[in-house]
Amino acid sequence: MNRRTFFTKLAVAAGLAATRWLPGIEHAQTAVAQDNSFPELEWRMVTSWPPLLGNLSFAAQLVAERIAEMTNGKFKITVYPAGELVPALEVMNHVSTGEVEMGHTAAYYYTQLSPANAFGCAIPFGLTAMQQNAWLYEHGGLQMLQAFYEDRFNLIQFPAGNTGVQMGGWFNKEITSLADLAGLRMRTVGLTGRVMAKLGVETVALGGGEIFQALVTGEIDAGEWVGPYDDQKLGLHKAARYYYYPGWWEPCTVTELQISLPAWQSLPQEYQIIVRAAAYEANLITLARYDAGNPAALQQLYDEADITLLAFPQEVLVAAETATFELFEEISASDADFAAILPEWVKFRDSVQAWHGVSELAYLNYSAWSLRTVES
Amino acid sequence: MNRRTFFTKLAVAAGLAATRWLPGIEHAQTAVAQDNSFPELEWRMVTSWPPLLGNLSFAAQLVAERIAEMTNGKFKITVYPAGELVPALEVMNHVSTGEVEMGHTAAYYYTQLSPANAFGCAIPFGLTAMQQNAWLYEHGGLQMLQAFYEDRFNLIQFPAGNTGVQMGGWFNKEITSLADLAGLRMRTVGLTGRVMAKLGVETVALGGGEIFQALVTGEIDAGEWVGPYDDQKLGLHKAARYYYYPGWWEPCTVTELQISLPAWQSLPQEYQIIVRAAAYEANLITLARYDAGNPAALQQLYDEADITLLAFPQEVLVAAETATFELFEEISASDADFAAILPEWVKFRDSVQAWHGVSELAYLNYSAWSLRTVES
Repeated sequence: MNRRTFFTKLAVAAGLAATRWLPGIEHAQTAVAQDNSFPELEWRMVTSWPPLLGNLSFAAQLVAERIAEMTNGKFKITVYPAGELVPALEVMNHVSTGEVEMGHTAAYYYTQLSPANAFGCAIPFGLTAMQQNAWLYEHGGLQMLQAFYEDRFNLIQFPAGNTGVQMGGWFNKEITSLADLAGLRMRTVGLTGRVMAKLGVETVALGGGEIFQALVTGEIDAGEWVGPYDDQKLGLHKAARYYYYPGWWEPCTVTELQISLPAWQSLPQEYQIIVRAAAYEANLITLARYDAGNPAALQQLYDEADITLLAFPQEVLVAAETATFELFEEISASDADFAAILPEWVKFRDSVQAWHGVSELAYLNYSAWSLRTVES
Repeated sequence: MNRRTFFTKLAVAAGLAATRWLPGIEHAQTAVAQDNSFPELEWRMVTSWPPLLGNLSFAAQLVAERIAEMTNGKFKITVYPAGELVPALEVMNHVSTGEVEMGHTAAYYYTQLSPANAFGCAIPFGLTAMQQNAWLYEHGGLQMLQAFYEDRFNLIQFPAGNTGVQMGGWFNKEITSLADLAGLRMRTVGLTGRVMAKLGVETVALGGGEIFQALVTGEIDAGEWVGPYDDQKLGLHKAARYYYYPGWWEPCTVTELQISLPAWQSLPQEYQIIVRAAAYEANLITLARYDAGNPAALQQLYDEADITLLAFPQEVLVAAETATFELFEEISASDADFAAILPEWVKFRDSVQAWHGVSELAYLNYSAWSLRTVES
């Protein structure tokens, strides 16, 4: 496979930022005759989620259920929890080879395959959920990443879940300065570990289910998972006292539906559109579930344990952002795919953050001020 | 029709906040035999949008196109622009009677039919797009409103578009204090006009296409439409100099797909799920289009005209919020539907705004600070 075909597609993509694009549709359209519509199919979807993880496994199940409902039961998909067919963090590998037709996972688990995988998932000091959707769907981001995935992994992906801005995790001591981070052992994943290393933090790779134990035994000093709703399920509020915000390394995290490209291309057009529609719904509804569940969960954390909610000191945020952009430069120097996507991504990030400064931020700022005034 | 059946349903709904609910599905399921799946249908969708209005008419077209694609062309829907079959602001009326099967409109155009219609669309000092999705989809909001619409209007609705936080509109003079609002003539719609009246502003009801002319001739001193992307199309930046933010009266505005209930109930289940899926996509993608289009549009407004971007003075926001909650009390005293929805809505608003204070707001705050620091 010629790795550079990605860039040919990219050049076309840049001129089509506002046009959504679905590779393989024309292909399938000509290959499948009209009267072969709505064939009976049975597919498998492997996931990175243990059944415990409410909102993450929910999204995968939702995709499968909706596809079955929209095809009147003709297109059946069986969803497998992490580890049952393939290990949690090898979903992408097995969809890439075509061993299974579908996967539901988070692309930043695969930054060792390519650091550019982080763009579709979560980037430190990157985009919020609304900004990420704008970039992916309507600024050519998904189009670029789909060309990249097609070329590198022989699969096609659709966003199918989002957590929103995550929390900054649980610490067993207060962080009052940048110096307090030095020497900490912390559980985190993806590019974040490399940023943390620049701040003197030692990263420990642990699965979600291992964080509680490691905090309690002192194997780690800090750990981050998602936010109140998911963290509560892991009991992290009973393992460490200081709960920090915001989670600057995951201003949003996208989970995605990945489909083996030959399997995708074998689908009639109506099934392709139906699969994509189920992913749209999962993306929208998962975020809504987090925003509906997090307020009550945060209150319950307070009720159940003696926790302290704290903002990271500005000094930490500034140092972390500086370290993040240093890391971007280092990665760009050695990875052409990452280097190809980064500049347009940064440009969009700055412009949409400026826009949100006079819209979402300006409004949230007032409503938070008003809420504090009423409560005090 | 017994108006109070709504409240019976509401009582059930309150206990099912996390369960999404689709009235009529079981009904249709038993009525339609398995082998009648994917029948050929032709429906009409009337809209409130002139073809000019990019993102608003786009959402209606998207719904129709997706439904056709997902049914392999068997379920065809013709979309009519405002005024072609029914007037722009009478879409809901004609779907309610069943004269047309579908409509795409904004529910706050119909607050004279019931002030409770504003909850599904836009409320001054209400919810942002993310918060509104959380309330509608995952906190029982849509369930309540669907029971209300079914009972009052014999229709079912699905969110199918969102603008995000709107701008505060165009003023021909600077607003430095609350006193500056007194005596202004301003174009606005829905409940906002009643809040504005409490601040001494005289509201003028005008269609989108009439705002430019009215500003230029001095018939009005101020006018608001949506935000940079849509306002630019109307040329408002060439009609008034001062562009205010945030649009506290529309922290988000939902456009919705409305379907005559008998028509909805006649659909086989797979078509119901497909119609709803198309609405989910329209809701997600329209917001992404606004966030992708607004940054560049705002820059172009600067390039094309001598405009000044200003935040409303805090004094104005505080007075407007006070007036808004006074209005809510007045409406609640005379409208049982509004009074039934308001308390739970306020409770959710306060809790989700508190949550966003440590997530979306905290992150956007830092990114805006960082952006200003880099640019200065």
